[in-house]
Amino acid sequence: MDNLFADRVADVPRSFIREILKVAFDPSVISFAGGLPNRDLFPVRELKEAAIKAFDTDACDMLQYRSSEGHLGLRRTIAERYVRRYGLDVRPENVLITSGSQQGMDLLGKVLLNEGDEVIIEQPSYLGAIQVLSGYRAVFHPVPVTEEGVDLPALQQILVRHKPKLMYGVPNFQNPAGISYSLENRRRLAAILQETSTIFVEDDPYSELRFAGTPKPPLKQLMPDSTVLLGSFSKIVAPGFRVGWLVAPDRMMEKLVIAKQAADLHSSSVSQYVIHQYLMDNDIDKHIREIVAVYGRLRQAMLDRMQEYFPRNVHTTRPEGGMFLWVSLPEHASATALFDLAIRDRVAFVPGDPFYVRHAGPVNTLRLSFSCVSEEMIDVGIRRLGDCIRKLIGRE
Amino acid sequence: MDNLFADRVADVPRSFIREILKVAFDPSVISFAGGLPNRDLFPVRELKEAAIKAFDTDACDMLQYRSSEGHLGLRRTIAERYVRRYGLDVRPENVLITSGSQQGMDLLGKVLLNEGDEVIIEQPSYLGAIQVLSGYRAVFHPVPVTEEGVDLPALQQILVRHKPKLMYGVPNFQNPAGISYSLENRRRLAAILQETSTIFVEDDPYSELRFAGTPKPPLKQLMPDSTVLLGSFSKIVAPGFRVGWLVAPDRMMEKLVIAKQAADLHSSSVSQYVIHQYLMDNDIDKHIREIVAVYGRLRQAMLDRMQEYFPRNVHTTRPEGGMFLWVSLPEHASATALFDLAIRDRVAFVPGDPFYVRHAGPVNTLRLSFSCVSEEMIDVGIRRLGDCIRKLIGRE
Repeated sequence: MDNLFADRVADVPRSFIREILKVAFDPSVISFAGGLPNRDLFPVRELKEAAIKAFDTDACDMLQYRSSEGHLGLRRTIAERYVRRYGLDVRPENVLITSGSQQGMDLLGKVLLNEGDEVIIEQPSYLGAIQVLSGYRAVFHPVPVTEEGVDLPALQQILVRHKPKLMYGVPNFQNPAGISYSLENRRRLAAILQETSTIFVEDDPYSELRFAGTPKPPLKQLMPDSTVLLGSFSKIVAPGFRVGWLVAPDRMMEKLVIAKQAADLHSSSVSQYVIHQYLMDNDIDKHIREIVAVYGRLRQAMLDRMQEYFPRNVHTTRPEGGMFLWVSLPEHASATALFDLAIRDRVAFVPGDPFYVRHAGPVNTLRLSFSCVSEEMIDVGIRRLGDCIRKLIGRE
Repeated sequence: MDNLFADRVADVPRSFIREILKVAFDPSVISFAGGLPNRDLFPVRELKEAAIKAFDTDACDMLQYRSSEGHLGLRRTIAERYVRRYGLDVRPENVLITSGSQQGMDLLGKVLLNEGDEVIIEQPSYLGAIQVLSGYRAVFHPVPVTEEGVDLPALQQILVRHKPKLMYGVPNFQNPAGISYSLENRRRLAAILQETSTIFVEDDPYSELRFAGTPKPPLKQLMPDSTVLLGSFSKIVAPGFRVGWLVAPDRMMEKLVIAKQAADLHSSSVSQYVIHQYLMDNDIDKHIREIVAVYGRLRQAMLDRMQEYFPRNVHTTRPEGGMFLWVSLPEHASATALFDLAIRDRVAFVPGDPFYVRHAGPVNTLRLSFSCVSEEMIDVGIRRLGDCIRKLIGRE
């Protein structure tokens, strides 16, 4: 029994968030804990029509084994969208369809990482990335991110002493902290990384969900040959299809396609055909504007209520898009202790701890999601949370 | 550039079959090369109705993020089917939904194999298994399989000297050779393996496609605590959904679920809900009988035409189910040379070579698939192939 499992799975953290979400699913709890897109915004009618049309036109192609690279029409649509949105030079041959961007990370780990290879990761960072890269026994070098972006002096210090194989980052409206890299930060980051052989993994599921500020160029544009860009339909159409993609330089595509073939032959072609049909028949930009309007309103409500109900010495990020914001309590106040207080008052959130590699972060941070709550729930929930914070840190 | 890729991907063979399939897709070629189920048998109308119903009843659940284990109703249906068909003690908690059984193998490799761990594999064996296990840098010990099943003395010789972590086998109508393990062979195999700590990976995509002989008990029944059973809807409904499953002992489930979560969070829930709805509303056993009737007729036609057109000293397996049969030419005749002759006559097949680990098999074997051809094509194709064999080996 002791020797049953491979060493690599000993290192993979169990998702702590799963346990919290169990509490948060209690309908009497106002939950800012989830990380889900708002289901009321799924384009159900349009997707059903797309499914019917896919069955009526391409059924046998859709239902048969397909190529590991993915549906060519869908890869073309994705490539054209990058050209149109950013003038990014993306060809369909550089797009690999994956089962969500989570699989994109898994394939990159498989193709790039030997045991002990070094990886730079944002801190705090997306939990799914920490989990999957841990499975490849990467040695993490966390680098802080602030509301400006990556802490570049800290990055340079790491690069003086180490030769990281890759760097993982979410430059737009990051999960968990809601922060984005500024234009200047992107330029300097690219200049620094281009002096090295480090591959930048640009995980970008949220960039289309911008409700304030101006769009920034993808890192893929600033360092095309050393960036792998990950994207997904999960936040802009629906996650249940599990359709994401990666855009990689030519020199990496063959190995990635072989890894994809070994992993699952190909992603659900039923999912791929239905999404493709949906994109052909609908204006996705219009749909995204509807999502953005809702999330933008909810984020503003959350910031306003925090202003009203939180003590002055509590800091929060002011995300320009996405689904999350990040709260910092006074230095020694424990977010886990706050969680225990809050859950008694029927409010849930995720303490910041699991978003740090080796749980080595500050104790005073927490993530709030505003994507799946109403303005009324925000009003009640943030007021209760403010009361709990006061209880925790004592009166101002 | 030299150090860009992980060592593990250096070992993964590129699928040689892909290159052959390119030739075989030429519509003027009679192809026995493919490994696809027959698309004319996909239950398109029923699946379309199931998709509509899934959108009408569960749309938002189906489209949202779901659990890594998979759709509970589907896992229940799969478990109940094992109970009904074999009296197998399978509970839904032991069923993990995967993206085809290919992903089941990938997850098992990830969870069980350290670099250099030893793996027993049938020879010849399923190419997808060789490919994915190579990626975990397994050391293979090939064991021959005959029309009786596993060569048990050869297996015992391996077990005297080695401690394999797992053994991979396809006990029913194996791809590529179409052979099955006899009842006696299964019993003795189970008795031998149960003296060891080796996990048996029972890949079973074809067992329902039986057109002759009597059903045999799964190895999972004979050694439940040390067998992981892999199944799939690809051959009995349609592959494009990429819905398969694994059935594992309790002690392995947690690690497998964490690995699944890290790999892709979960399989397409659109695929899972549509398949589940299809199974609720239709008699899948009736549908399978229709597939079996067609494949059984085509296999018989192929055997009959071989009897008629092939030289006497060519041997072929007589599969009791599935989609493949296996031809052995006289000892020194090269199947690759035959391929070159046959393709000029517009007939394609797959030479046996890639189905052997390190391509170390005999030169004289080849795989023929009868699932996607008509009786007329079989008549013409087998006659041409017989002529080519005569040309290759000289007149009898």
